[in-house]
Amino acid sequence: MKARNTAPDIICPISWEGDHLLMLDQRLLPWKERWLKLRTARDVHRAIKEMVIRGAPAIGIAAAFGLVLAARGAVRRPRRFLETLEKAASLLATARPTAVNLFWTLSRMMNLARSLWPGEPQEIFARLEEEAQAIWSEDVAANRRMGHLGAQLIADGSTVLTHCNAGALATGGYGTALGVIRAAVESGKKIQVLADETRPYLQGARLTAWELARVGIPVTVINDSAAGYLIAKGQVSAIVVGADRIAANGDVANKIGTYTLAVLASRHGIPFYVAAPRSTVDLKTPEGQRIPIEQRAPEEVHFCGRQRMTPSGVEALAVAFDVTPAELITAIITEVGVLRPPYGPALEAALRED
Amino acid sequence: MKARNTAPDIICPISWEGDHLLMLDQRLLPWKERWLKLRTARDVHRAIKEMVIRGAPAIGIAAAFGLVLAARGAVRRPRRFLETLEKAASLLATARPTAVNLFWTLSRMMNLARSLWPGEPQEIFARLEEEAQAIWSEDVAANRRMGHLGAQLIADGSTVLTHCNAGALATGGYGTALGVIRAAVESGKKIQVLADETRPYLQGARLTAWELARVGIPVTVINDSAAGYLIAKGQVSAIVVGADRIAANGDVANKIGTYTLAVLASRHGIPFYVAAPRSTVDLKTPEGQRIPIEQRAPEEVHFCGRQRMTPSGVEALAVAFDVTPAELITAIITEVGVLRPPYGPALEAALRED
Repeated sequence: MKARNTAPDIICPISWEGDHLLMLDQRLLPWKERWLKLRTARDVHRAIKEMVIRGAPAIGIAAAFGLVLAARGAVRRPRRFLETLEKAASLLATARPTAVNLFWTLSRMMNLARSLWPGEPQEIFARLEEEAQAIWSEDVAANRRMGHLGAQLIADGSTVLTHCNAGALATGGYGTALGVIRAAVESGKKIQVLADETRPYLQGARLTAWELARVGIPVTVINDSAAGYLIAKGQVSAIVVGADRIAANGDVANKIGTYTLAVLASRHGIPFYVAAPRSTVDLKTPEGQRIPIEQRAPEEVHFCGRQRMTPSGVEALAVAFDVTPAELITAIITEVGVLRPPYGPALEAALRED
Repeated sequence: MKARNTAPDIICPISWEGDHLLMLDQRLLPWKERWLKLRTARDVHRAIKEMVIRGAPAIGIAAAFGLVLAARGAVRRPRRFLETLEKAASLLATARPTAVNLFWTLSRMMNLARSLWPGEPQEIFARLEEEAQAIWSEDVAANRRMGHLGAQLIADGSTVLTHCNAGALATGGYGTALGVIRAAVESGKKIQVLADETRPYLQGARLTAWELARVGIPVTVINDSAAGYLIAKGQVSAIVVGADRIAANGDVANKIGTYTLAVLASRHGIPFYVAAPRSTVDLKTPEGQRIPIEQRAPEEVHFCGRQRMTPSGVEALAVAFDVTPAELITAIITEVGVLRPPYGPALEAALRED
């Protein structure tokens, strides 16, 4: 573990150091900025599973570097090089089930590794390192492009509601939903942000608020259950969220609570936007009902911070994601364009673009 | 302050001791059962304001005993007896703005006091004491009756979702929404309860779970934002909540988050019931938009338990209640019958009944 300063306006969840990965421990934000030193794929697996890092694109990038670490370790045992990588990929794939970016980066990395095998392990390691860095920088570029495209949907003077954290911390370093908001502000618009606190992990209260404060965008944190009241009062201009997986028909899995916001937006006629890179799209899953929804330990609901809130002997259910049907989504903002319904053909076309 | 045992199945938020009021400190549940000794109307005012006691009917009953305490203190200054009572009533009325039961019990008590004045202070004190006890026992009787009537709406094998705490702790001692659930169970039905944790005060996680565990009804606590997912999955048979104020047209003010549940229930075609005694009905307020909605200190959102969750310099907004329009309410369960739309005439008729 090593302390590490970050310039106030550059927020990034990881740093690649050639022989290890530094990862900002998001469980400790906003109280402490502690960077963990990860040396193996197993370390990265645990960090994803235990939510040191979270957010679909960030998980994908971290997993890619997990394979780089596996490759680095395997150089010393050249004959079992590919086998070691395959095992590491299988392990990393079990870290979390819902975000598809994890599987997308793992296959991209493994397809490259397989295409170079048999070959010189040190050389393959170098190529994998380059590929992980490419995945990372492509994600940041996609975020910026999404931000630019999405910002045009947000009118000057808007109050934008967002859920969970779809910001720099959840991505390679700029943000999907928060990227749209940041780009709107950078283009000179005056934007207010309402951040759902997002129980149980409070990514909104802890991470979104921290990020936005850091880049100087005014943010007001609300309890998740207050969104309905504020929407009904006409105090929300638009809702922008990220995504953990987008099915072929445009159904979106995202942090628990997203579906409810989409229902409220539809009832009150305000736009509901999803911002996500193409790596979040899963054409193999035809519709949202088929997306595996992670259920986490009940303790996440029993506890608020360090304090248990429920009496003993009582059950709790921690569902991490929900599915928003395509019909409730006004537009999906990707790096190759703002997609409109019907999403089936729009997503297929978006994935074909260069 | 004095420790006090309560039999496991009798849960009651207060105990009248002749010269003081004992009040269970609900802020400390489920961790500690501490009873506070309140000797003056000012003590009661602070206890309501600081949420030692909460829940519309319980607040009303507590305020009635606040006036009894004021009367007791005023006996020594007979000439200023009524004036002292008027001042105490004015103070108690400022404790919280949304629940109408507070104003209802204060006027019932003050109307009695004024009707007996000029008179013998000790005698008026005794009559006020009787009146407060009557208000209390009428509330428990109303709860039981509501429970009996409402239980008939809940099918055997149902999973009932509830929000906040509309139980014994929120009333004279049986519960409105939880009274309906308890009565259904007492009538032999098998009922599962899903309890929204109800941020920011976590009345669901702390109080509803505690009460139901105590009376042996299975309960699962969920994050408020998970209700939408479970409703969409078909895992909720009905929603039952309490009310803080019911406007003349049937619009209902209740704990923040209630409106969102009603919207979800309507979308998925499941019944949405409000259980409340007639003392919650406010015919002078024509519609929900006119109900004053309490905004509390932002710290309630910033903090989860004892831990601040947001970074410094970030705003938070704590709205305590929202308004559910009558059109989203399947039925209002009162002690004189289950009311169906149109609620305007139904509520008027209900208030006229003996």
